[in-house]
Amino acid sequence: MADVKRRPSVVIIGGGFGGLYAARVLKRAPVDVTVVDRTNHHLFQPLLYQVATATLAPTEITAPIRWLLRKQRNTRVLLAEVTAIDVERRAIVCDDGMSISHDYLLVASGSRHSYFGHTEWERIAPGLKSIDDAIVMRQRLLLAFERAEKATSDAERKRLLTFVVIGGGPTGVELAGMLPLIARRTLPGEFRNIDTNEARVILLEGGPRVLPSFSENLSRHAKRELEELGVDVRLNSTVTNVERGAVSMGPERIESESIFWAAGNESSPLGRLLGAPLDRAGRVKVEADLSVPGHQDIFVAGDLAEMFTAGKRVPGVAPAAMQSGAHAARNILRVIDGRGTTPFRYRNKGDLATIGRHRAIAQLPALEVWGKPAWWLWLFVHIMYLAGFRNRLSVLIEWAYSYFTDQRGARLVSARGS
Amino acid sequence: MADVKRRPSVVIIGGGFGGLYAARVLKRAPVDVTVVDRTNHHLFQPLLYQVATATLAPTEITAPIRWLLRKQRNTRVLLAEVTAIDVERRAIVCDDGMSISHDYLLVASGSRHSYFGHTEWERIAPGLKSIDDAIVMRQRLLLAFERAEKATSDAERKRLLTFVVIGGGPTGVELAGMLPLIARRTLPGEFRNIDTNEARVILLEGGPRVLPSFSENLSRHAKRELEELGVDVRLNSTVTNVERGAVSMGPERIESESIFWAAGNESSPLGRLLGAPLDRAGRVKVEADLSVPGHQDIFVAGDLAEMFTAGKRVPGVAPAAMQSGAHAARNILRVIDGRGTTPFRYRNKGDLATIGRHRAIAQLPALEVWGKPAWWLWLFVHIMYLAGFRNRLSVLIEWAYSYFTDQRGARLVSARGS
Repeated sequence: MADVKRRPSVVIIGGGFGGLYAARVLKRAPVDVTVVDRTNHHLFQPLLYQVATATLAPTEITAPIRWLLRKQRNTRVLLAEVTAIDVERRAIVCDDGMSISHDYLLVASGSRHSYFGHTEWERIAPGLKSIDDAIVMRQRLLLAFERAEKATSDAERKRLLTFVVIGGGPTGVELAGMLPLIARRTLPGEFRNIDTNEARVILLEGGPRVLPSFSENLSRHAKRELEELGVDVRLNSTVTNVERGAVSMGPERIESESIFWAAGNESSPLGRLLGAPLDRAGRVKVEADLSVPGHQDIFVAGDLAEMFTAGKRVPGVAPAAMQSGAHAARNILRVIDGRGTTPFRYRNKGDLATIGRHRAIAQLPALEVWGKPAWWLWLFVHIMYLAGFRNRLSVLIEWAYSYFTDQRGARLVSARGS
Repeated sequence: MADVKRRPSVVIIGGGFGGLYAARVLKRAPVDVTVVDRTNHHLFQPLLYQVATATLAPTEITAPIRWLLRKQRNTRVLLAEVTAIDVERRAIVCDDGMSISHDYLLVASGSRHSYFGHTEWERIAPGLKSIDDAIVMRQRLLLAFERAEKATSDAERKRLLTFVVIGGGPTGVELAGMLPLIARRTLPGEFRNIDTNEARVILLEGGPRVLPSFSENLSRHAKRELEELGVDVRLNSTVTNVERGAVSMGPERIESESIFWAAGNESSPLGRLLGAPLDRAGRVKVEADLSVPGHQDIFVAGDLAEMFTAGKRVPGVAPAAMQSGAHAARNILRVIDGRGTTPFRYRNKGDLATIGRHRAIAQLPALEVWGKPAWWLWLFVHIMYLAGFRNRLSVLIEWAYSYFTDQRGARLVSARGS
C-alpha cells in the first residue's frame, strides 16, 4: 500500500488570466488540478469597458472556465468563493462549507477597484472590474440619457448629460474616449427633448499626465487625442469628495449624475488570508520565484502579487498575469520534481492603450506608435488574445457593425438592472 | 389663435409587440405619439426561452425601443413605469412623478406569469416573461450543474440534476425540450464528478395533453417528441405545493432544486387602473373595436385585452398582439377623423411551437406539420419576425454555432446574478 504514489494535488484560486494560464501549463503534468472561482467564467478584462459602454454583450467577453479547460482530464473546475486558507493544514475553505485540501496552492484572485477608504463613494461612482460592474455602468450610462430626455429643468438636464470619469489610467481613458462617440455618433436622432451632442465628458486625473505608465510623449498624444474627441481632460485634479450629483476637487465642484470610477485598485482580500507580508495596495510580497516567503508550496500570481523584474515593479496588466500564472505553475512542477525554482522575469512585449475610434497609443520595446496605426495594432492584438474561437468571431462581427454603422449592439436597460 | 389646431396626442403604454406595431401605424399620421415603457427595450418574447437556456444573449433578443422608432419624427419614447391612469382628466402618472396628458390612450402593457395566488412559489420556481426573468432562470439552470459537481451525497446530486418544468404550454414545452439537449449534448465532458447525462427533466401538465391550443393530433406528436428527447411528460398532474427542494402533486412528491414555472399568465395590473370590467385573468373586456366600454378615447391591445374573433377568444400570442396593436392605432385615427371604428378580427396565419432540435409542430389553416419540416418552418418564421436587421444576423450566427457544435454561446453565471 505504501508504494502507491498519490498524484500531487494543485489548487488554483481564480479563473482569470493568472489562474487560466497556470492551469494550461499543468495540462499534461502528473498532477490533479482544481480551479476554484466564484463565478463560472473567465473574463477578458481588457474589453470590459466595451461592455460598460454597450458595444459588446457580457457573453462576448466571457467563457465558462470549465469549457475552456474541458479537454484537460486532470483538471476539475469548482464554482465557490474561498473564505479561508489554512496554510498549515494545506486546505482552503469555501463559502458553502466545502473544504479542499491540496499539496500545492496558487492564489491568483486578482484585484478590485479601490476607493482609498471612501467605500461610500462606490454606490455613487461605480468602478469596473467584474462583468456585474460593467452591467451596472452600462445601466447608469444609458439611464442618464433616458432621464435627461424626461428632465424638467435645464440644470437637471445638464447634470444628467455631464459624464465624469475619475482616473486617467487605461480604463479611465478608454471609458472617457468611448463616451463622446456614443453621445455624438450612436444616439443622435433617437431623442426628441435633448440634443445628445451637448453631453460633456470630463476626465479627472490626479497626476500631471494621463496614462502615466507610458512615455511622456505618448501621454501627450493620448491627451491630445482625447481632447480632439471632445473630452475635457483635467490633470492634477485630485477628487476630494463624491456625493450624489456632484464631484468635488477642493473648492471646485462639478455637477454630474454619471460619475464613473477608474482611479485605483486594491488586491483581493485573499492575500490577507495567507498571513504573508503585503504591500500598501494589499499585494503579497512574493519571493522572486513567486512563492510566499517560507512556503515553497504556496504561490501567488497576477495582480495579487507584488512582483519585480530588473528592479522595476511588474504592472498589473493582462500579459503580466498570464506570464506569472504560467511561471508559478512551472515552478510548482519543479518543486514536485525536486528541482530548484526559477525567478520570474516579466517580458514586456509592449503596452497598448486605446483611446477611441482610430486612436490609440502603443509603447513597443524600440518604438512608439500613436493614432491610427496604434489603433489597428490594438485591434489585432486583442482579437488574437480573445479566449476561444467563438467569442473572437462574435466580437469581430460586433466591432465591424459598430465601426461601419456607429451603432452599439448591447444597449440593454432592464427593470432589475441586469 | 383659436384657429391653430393642436395635433392630437396619442400615448401608448408598453413597447412590446402591441405597442410597437401601434406606434408604427401612426408613423405618418398627424398626431404626436408618446411610447412609455418601464424598460428601454422591445423584447422578442418568443425567443426568451433561448436566453433562459443560455443559447442566445439577452442583447440578441432585445432592441432599444427608441432605436426601433428613431425615424418616426412624430414619436417620442420615455422610460417610466405607469402608476396611475386618470381616465377623466386624460393623463397618466409615472413612478417618477411625471404626468403625461393625452387625447387618446392605448394600453398594451401585456401580462406576467401567475402563480394562482401562491406568490410565495415565485421565489422557488421562477417564471419567464421579462429579460430579467430569463437571466434568473439561466443562472438557476447553470448553477444546478455547478452545485451538483460539488454535491457531497447522491441524494443532493440527484435533487440538483432533476429539472421540473411546471406547465405544458408553449413556454413549458420549449424549456423542457431544451434541457435534455444541454445536459446530453452541450455539457458532457466538462464535469468530473457528475455525469450530466443523468439529468432528469420532468414536465408537469395539469390537463390531459401538452400544447392544448393545438389539435389533439399535434399534441400527441409533441408529447412523443418530448419523450424521444428524454423528457418525462406527466399529464393530469396538478401541482399542489412548491417548496424549496420539492414539488408536490397531492401525495406525490418530486425532489428537485431546479423548478421552473410556465403554468399561467395574468394580465398587467394596469388593466385595473382603467376602471373597466375585467375577466378572471385580469384582461380588460374591450369592445369589438378594442376600445374600453364607454371610452372611445381609450383602447387596449395585446395580452391585456380580452378579444374575440368569430366567437372564439383570441390567444395571447405575438401575432395577436401585433395585429390588435395595429388595429387599435387605426381605430384611433378613425375616431380622430370622425369616421366610425371597425371591429378587430384576428387573422390566425398558423400556430407554431418548437420542441427541440429538429422537432416542432405547426398548425396552419389547412395543414398540420410536425417534426423536421415544422422545425425549419419555425426557424424561418422567427428569423423573419426578429425586429431589426442586426439582431437577426447575430441570432443566425448563434443558432448556426449551436446547431453545428451543440455549444451554447451564453453560459454566463455572475456573482450578482445578472
